[in-house]
Amino acid sequence: MINPQSLALGTKRNTIMELADYGRARAAIVGRENIFDFSIGNPSVPAPAEVNAAMVDILQNMDSLAVHGYTSTLGDPRTRAVIAEDLNRRFGCDATADELLLCCGAAPEVSAVCKALTTPGAEIFVFAPYFPEYKPYIEQAGAAFRVVPASIPDFQLNLEALEEMLSPNTSAVIVNNPNNPVGSVYTTETIEKLSALLERKSQEFGHRIYIIADEPYRELVYEGAVVPFIPNIYPHTVVCYSYSKSLSLPGERMGYIYVPTKAQDGRDLYHAIIGAARAMGHVCAPSLLQLALARCAHLLPDLSTYDRNRRTLAEALAEYGYEMAKPEGAFYIFLKAPGGDDLAFSQKAMAKDLLIMPGSDFGCPGYLRLCYCVDYDTVVRSLPIFKELMEAYR
Amino acid sequence: MINPQSLALGTKRNTIMELADYGRARAAIVGRENIFDFSIGNPSVPAPAEVNAAMVDILQNMDSLAVHGYTSTLGDPRTRAVIAEDLNRRFGCDATADELLLCCGAAPEVSAVCKALTTPGAEIFVFAPYFPEYKPYIEQAGAAFRVVPASIPDFQLNLEALEEMLSPNTSAVIVNNPNNPVGSVYTTETIEKLSALLERKSQEFGHRIYIIADEPYRELVYEGAVVPFIPNIYPHTVVCYSYSKSLSLPGERMGYIYVPTKAQDGRDLYHAIIGAARAMGHVCAPSLLQLALARCAHLLPDLSTYDRNRRTLAEALAEYGYEMAKPEGAFYIFLKAPGGDDLAFSQKAMAKDLLIMPGSDFGCPGYLRLCYCVDYDTVVRSLPIFKELMEAYR
Repeated sequence: MINPQSLALGTKRNTIMELADYGRARAAIVGRENIFDFSIGNPSVPAPAEVNAAMVDILQNMDSLAVHGYTSTLGDPRTRAVIAEDLNRRFGCDATADELLLCCGAAPEVSAVCKALTTPGAEIFVFAPYFPEYKPYIEQAGAAFRVVPASIPDFQLNLEALEEMLSPNTSAVIVNNPNNPVGSVYTTETIEKLSALLERKSQEFGHRIYIIADEPYRELVYEGAVVPFIPNIYPHTVVCYSYSKSLSLPGERMGYIYVPTKAQDGRDLYHAIIGAARAMGHVCAPSLLQLALARCAHLLPDLSTYDRNRRTLAEALAEYGYEMAKPEGAFYIFLKAPGGDDLAFSQKAMAKDLLIMPGSDFGCPGYLRLCYCVDYDTVVRSLPIFKELMEAYR
Repeated sequence: MINPQSLALGTKRNTIMELADYGRARAAIVGRENIFDFSIGNPSVPAPAEVNAAMVDILQNMDSLAVHGYTSTLGDPRTRAVIAEDLNRRFGCDATADELLLCCGAAPEVSAVCKALTTPGAEIFVFAPYFPEYKPYIEQAGAAFRVVPASIPDFQLNLEALEEMLSPNTSAVIVNNPNNPVGSVYTTETIEKLSALLERKSQEFGHRIYIIADEPYRELVYEGAVVPFIPNIYPHTVVCYSYSKSLSLPGERMGYIYVPTKAQDGRDLYHAIIGAARAMGHVCAPSLLQLALARCAHLLPDLSTYDRNRRTLAEALAEYGYEMAKPEGAFYIFLKAPGGDDLAFSQKAMAKDLLIMPGSDFGCPGYLRLCYCVDYDTVVRSLPIFKELMEAYR
């Protein structure tokens, strides 16, 4: 008696991973340097030296039982206190250790928060283009997956469409800022408008609509772009954070959930998230990483590598005639597909060993996602291929 | 719209964690040396030195991107190959890397496997006494949680009761060997009988009933007890393993799922488990740990510390008049509660700063679980308290 939804999810793997696997296999044939893999957001900047140094120091100088033992399910109290302090310093909020839950990365965090916010008939919204794994997270929770169409060409939030779609069944909306796959940043003004809408609709429906703020890219912004800290604008916000991108630790699975007590039913929501995570097998976040974070949570990423890639690509691609959303966050560029067919273009690019994700996989056909977390050399050597591909459409 | 089941799970925390938290708080008042905490199975033997050495070496000498980057969702291919080889060497099986999925510990593994084996109306069985978290894992999957009564006093599997309870809705039975909370080992003979029963019933019902073998304690056995490798007896078995106990790494969240291809619909089941894990937010197991395991998967725990505790406690408690199941695996002793009321006894013990779990929490009232993964000194100094408690019942 095998669960058919699970089987479908496990058989048709997510396209990003498929394309990345293809890239690895192809690299084995033609050589790594001849594959231009812009498919997956695996950071290309090493973790800050302080992180490895902290881990080594802990492994060499702390009692093994303390390093590798279970922590509290909520996470080590000192690490949570350090993170709360860091949030308060940077965003002027009033977070405390007991509003945080340390988890194995943003993916299980979002999945657990969706579960905690699902009652029978509930629906959870995402804004296109969206990270495709939101669909399985929302659906495993038992909620209906609802997509708000993209706001083109500004790639802010399509609040007119959201207003029409919100219903008495709406439990939450997921906001991913900076955005994957676009690389755009939702402005303070946008979030303020969203907040006003949700406040009004919460009153109208007689229950709170929460924001799930998925923010693994919060620290990755360029040209002075500002990422608003959503709980400061709309307190009924659960923040899901990960150190995957900011500290280049994606394989280590480390992040936190922040549930402000001032959110409506904030304490109940915090406990419901703990309960949801527990049922999925959350025990604690990796303990060595927790200890290292108590020393490293304040570190910011070195963005110069990503920024150079970003500027080089954006400039050259614009020159070749590509249109794109303004790339100001994360490490993504979202291109309008020449000819309008993203799947066809992605295939044509693949034939030249250039791997880019079709926007259709993010609920936004006609566009293409480029991850520019690659070697600069890869960027430079890929440019003639981009040029050649565009020329075929002239 | 907060999920009431999640809220209940997150508010009423699991008693083990509650008792352990109580112990920590009480220790802050009366001093750690005056708390006799036998409540939680946090290993008291340090991780093998090779594990820390491997981690340090990897951190100091490998490329940070390779150490901390995403691995394949399935887990690093080399680590999986090493684990498969280790299984084959030790159990004479024919495991391959592509039958393994590396995960963040046994808890999310069992939760995902339950999900993958759940269709509408499905029921999953556990044998009392059982690890209490099975209930939320099974129920989050949407299956009915069914408990087979304990087999007292031998604490093998109550197969007569199981046979009566199995129904056309039965999807799987969970077998936890060596057993938590009893510390008993299900013998090869017991597993062979279970296998014959499930084979017969699978034929009768026209669908396969799977075994979910939860085996974090597989390496922790004493006095030559043998833990049968269940897939060798019943191929329709999914093994959920964790390095928490064998390598004393419970906080690090590292384990694997083994799905034999020779199991009925084995490949579909493997993919369904991947799909179920993905929906819960599985991305990969912690990457540094994966790399370390490629060097350390063959290591066995040093059992001398646990064994000394086990023998000292079992001998003294028997002398004081306690009755117990034969403790031959894991690090648990399961005592018959003097007076018959485990909750009352646990309370009386708590008043003397001796923390032991009531069997009621494991579906087996009238018994008490002692975790002997503590300092030897704690064992020795706890004995007069056990003696005194028993004397009050004379």
